[in-house]
Amino acid sequence: MSSSSTAMTFTPGEEIRTRIDKLRPLMEKSRLDAAFFHYKIDYYYLAGTMQDAFLLVPLERDPVLFVRRDLKRARRESPLAEVIPLKALEEIRPYVVGMTRIGLQLDVMPYNMVMKYRDLLPGPEFVDASPMVKAVRKKKSSFEITLMEKAAAIAKKVYAKIPEVLHEGMSEIGLGGVLEAYAKPLGHEGILRMRSLNYEPYTWHILSGRTGSIVSQADSPMGGLGLSPAFPVGASRKKMRKGEPILVDFGVNYHGYHMDLTRMYALGHMPDQFIRAYEVCKEIEHAVLERALQGVAASELFRYSQELAESSGFGPYYLGYEPHKVNFLGHGIGIELSELPFLAPKHDYPLEEGMTFAIEPKMVFPGKGACGIEDTVLMEKTGYRILSDVDDRIAVI
Amino acid sequence: MSSSSTAMTFTPGEEIRTRIDKLRPLMEKSRLDAAFFHYKIDYYYLAGTMQDAFLLVPLERDPVLFVRRDLKRARRESPLAEVIPLKALEEIRPYVVGMTRIGLQLDVMPYNMVMKYRDLLPGPEFVDASPMVKAVRKKKSSFEITLMEKAAAIAKKVYAKIPEVLHEGMSEIGLGGVLEAYAKPLGHEGILRMRSLNYEPYTWHILSGRTGSIVSQADSPMGGLGLSPAFPVGASRKKMRKGEPILVDFGVNYHGYHMDLTRMYALGHMPDQFIRAYEVCKEIEHAVLERALQGVAASELFRYSQELAESSGFGPYYLGYEPHKVNFLGHGIGIELSELPFLAPKHDYPLEEGMTFAIEPKMVFPGKGACGIEDTVLMEKTGYRILSDVDDRIAVI
Repeated sequence: MSSSSTAMTFTPGEEIRTRIDKLRPLMEKSRLDAAFFHYKIDYYYLAGTMQDAFLLVPLERDPVLFVRRDLKRARRESPLAEVIPLKALEEIRPYVVGMTRIGLQLDVMPYNMVMKYRDLLPGPEFVDASPMVKAVRKKKSSFEITLMEKAAAIAKKVYAKIPEVLHEGMSEIGLGGVLEAYAKPLGHEGILRMRSLNYEPYTWHILSGRTGSIVSQADSPMGGLGLSPAFPVGASRKKMRKGEPILVDFGVNYHGYHMDLTRMYALGHMPDQFIRAYEVCKEIEHAVLERALQGVAASELFRYSQELAESSGFGPYYLGYEPHKVNFLGHGIGIELSELPFLAPKHDYPLEEGMTFAIEPKMVFPGKGACGIEDTVLMEKTGYRILSDVDDRIAVI
Repeated sequence: MSSSSTAMTFTPGEEIRTRIDKLRPLMEKSRLDAAFFHYKIDYYYLAGTMQDAFLLVPLERDPVLFVRRDLKRARRESPLAEVIPLKALEEIRPYVVGMTRIGLQLDVMPYNMVMKYRDLLPGPEFVDASPMVKAVRKKKSSFEITLMEKAAAIAKKVYAKIPEVLHEGMSEIGLGGVLEAYAKPLGHEGILRMRSLNYEPYTWHILSGRTGSIVSQADSPMGGLGLSPAFPVGASRKKMRKGEPILVDFGVNYHGYHMDLTRMYALGHMPDQFIRAYEVCKEIEHAVLERALQGVAASELFRYSQELAESSGFGPYYLGYEPHKVNFLGHGIGIELSELPFLAPKHDYPLEEGMTFAIEPKMVFPGKGACGIEDTVLMEKTGYRILSDVDDRIAVI
């Protein structure tokens, strides 16, 4: 495994220390004696490994990572000092003696699992610690941004591949497969991640013509047809034809960090309506980003984008058609495809330096198709930077 | 969408009726007034759709499917008579008036979600209904077996593709991508499903030489290296070389139904040790299946396989090496990759007609690699049938 082609980036110790240092004041504010992390997304963030483990972060002592299977590998991946084997959950008990309030990830941990913890630790009160780690994750470090830039570099290659391979008669899912096969050897994990019981994110969100106007399970302006009722979203076996708007929303995941972007394609020509709607989407994106720099709240940015869509005349199609409009213009992005911040009602906070989010003004025309743009953006000290640095002109092939 | 290439199979009404008829006696035995299904795997099974929905199965009235987003599509996919829109969860309340015990999927529903139900329905006691639907799902209908046969037909094509594309210097993940791209247009969903907080199944479990002996997060004899600490399992960027055992465990999902199988490949030649170990694995598989026909308990079949491995001299490598041996020889398979029955300790029931399971005797040699076989098998009235009907000789390319 010494070959450089299999080299991996591990999270540095300083990075982990900083994250835990930011978590602790939030724990203290909630009067937690400790927080326990077993959902792997969060303990990857706080410990640097996804080996089968439990992370205990006491308020006043060093974190302990209890590892169930591959201890050696966990020790290699995690910079934490205390990475120890765990045979049975009971072994955790001595570490929490005398504690009265313990944080657990109650938003994702199954009810039965929490009850098991209850039996094991009958004393302390359990409190949801997920909002705390989510709050820390809201702003990215330069280490994280570097990983997102690498995800963006993969996305750039993937999107550059599309005009080379897309042809009339190719199925949506066929294109999805080709892009997946191309992206994986570049370092793309092949999976995307969402904190949800039922929503399974996927890369092959490729919709052409009418399938772009099909709604589905997903909280997205356009769901797509999918392959079957067992996965009724995304690319289908429908063949792509001349003159259809082709929307490609292919997410990339590099070392756990996501990149989300959408670009438009057409074979032969793109109908005028979609060209005009796409231009409006681009204008909305840029106008919203400019306003974000003024410290306007995310909820207000969402409303502003609706006004812009209304005044363009495309209001009825913006973010979907009635009754299926969605209630967000953007979502934070990092080790989950969708996390804080959200450009949506009730999110009354500004977009600050270090936040990364996907902004996706899109239009859906019933029975005809969809178009729109999506970019992953980083807020910087005095400006914003579009990480998904991919040519945003409609590509007519 | 009239094109036959996008045609989908919907679950027939008779099939859904039979499943619910089998569920009701289990509900009655647990004195449930109703059971509520919101985890989509189970309501797909009981209602035929994965649109965003809540399925209420009262003990004595007809089921009601409450749909949140695409009602039209849910009505097309589900044969249930009562498929109605849901704006707010409160609308469910009148349907459960007077009930004292209600089933929920407490093994997968997040704690916070159950508390939300608690607030909404403060009266009734909540009981875990997942064991009931899992028990019904344990035996497959002929409708389900037909879908699994279609998944097997896709797998057969995928595995036939391997010798055409595998070459020296190709990376494990490169092969995984090519197979994924080939399988998707044939109807493969691209995702596999497991009822687990942390385990994300994937298709690209392709391990060559030393990576076959790497353990990881997964409860599997061999984990693989993966691409990063954020997904430390499965195919890696390691290039495949002459004389290495190459293990391909590429699961297929057709209309939600899984097919799981493993075959062995080599470039140039396969080292003798792995050839012999592979032959032992095949012998174990067949000996265990023969014994299963005699009505022997699944737990006993597991122990029997250990005896066979011991007497072959390969005991130390069977199902992994110490301390990383896994405690199962097989797992049921259907709309989840891993479900009842299990060929493992404590599963003291026989394998009966209609059960489908993956049996996977595998050997892992520390630092050297892995080999083994896996097949998806159907128990029939007087015999068994290997659904994953793919040439099981080692393919030397």
